[in-house]
Amino acid sequence: MIEPHPSGGYILEELAIGMAAEKRLTVTEDRIEQFAEASDDFNPVHMDEAFASKTAYRGRIAHGLLSASFGSAVVGTILPGAGAIYLSQTLAFHRPVRVGDIVVTRMTITAIDELSARVVLRGEAFVGDELVMDGDATVRVPRRRRKI
Amino acid sequence: MIEPHPSGGYILEELAIGMAAEKRLTVTEDRIEQFAEASDDFNPVHMDEAFASKTAYRGRIAHGLLSASFGSAVVGTILPGAGAIYLSQTLAFHRPVRVGDIVVTRMTITAIDELSARVVLRGEAFVGDELVMDGDATVRVPRRRRKI
Repeated sequence: MIEPHPSGGYILEELAIGMAAEKRLTVTEDRIEQFAEASDDFNPVHMDEAFASKTAYRGRIAHGLLSASFGSAVVGTILPGAGAIYLSQTLAFHRPVRVGDIVVTRMTITAIDELSARVVLRGEAFVGDELVMDGDATVRVPRRRRKI
Repeated sequence: MIEPHPSGGYILEELAIGMAAEKRLTVTEDRIEQFAEASDDFNPVHMDEAFASKTAYRGRIAHGLLSASFGSAVVGTILPGAGAIYLSQTLAFHRPVRVGDIVVTRMTITAIDELSARVVLRGEAFVGDELVMDGDATVRVPRRRRKI
């Protein structure tokens, strides 16, 4: 697994297909509360156990984009890190994530377009052995500055 | 524009293509700080004006998934509202969103599959007249309960 670059971010010339980085984060009550405040998404399925227990989820679940944000954190702070410009993202939610779950989010470089400086990272999030979410992030990465 | 359903959420039989709902939210320092705490994404391009002023963005920008979460808030709290199950999401980021920007996020139903109870909502986020982000959300919606 890749560690953050000492400068804060990797440049295009330092990246290769197969490079991967991950983050392990626990979904706490605090994270759900902070995400709700940030997004203004107080959907009771996330906030209200009594309500959520009567839904198809049978209990409170984390906001889908909260789990997704862990992948964005990997992209923005480890691989490629600061300097990468987020262009697009796909997300598929396979299983609910609950308070107390430990989410391991791994981002792996699957494509590099040298011409456009675009890099695709495949994201996968696991709780234990189960894939809870996956998707692709496309970012533009800075190039090495030319010497004058 | 659709208002939240008195029960908290719309069921499949109440939905039609073209129904739309929107939310208007200001990107404040507080929201960015809360999103960073929730996601553990302290990328300096979001948090550090001195760093961000030297990047391609020429100043701090909001996390892309923070703006995206405003669309998720519309889906989860207005249309279809509580009870909808998030299956997938696509996102394309067209322009940076900055502290103080007022983001208007509109979600419009573009497809309904009666058989699978799946609904596609087209999401568009604007700052002033400019489209800053768009993408599609796919959700599964509860059906009317059959009378026994």
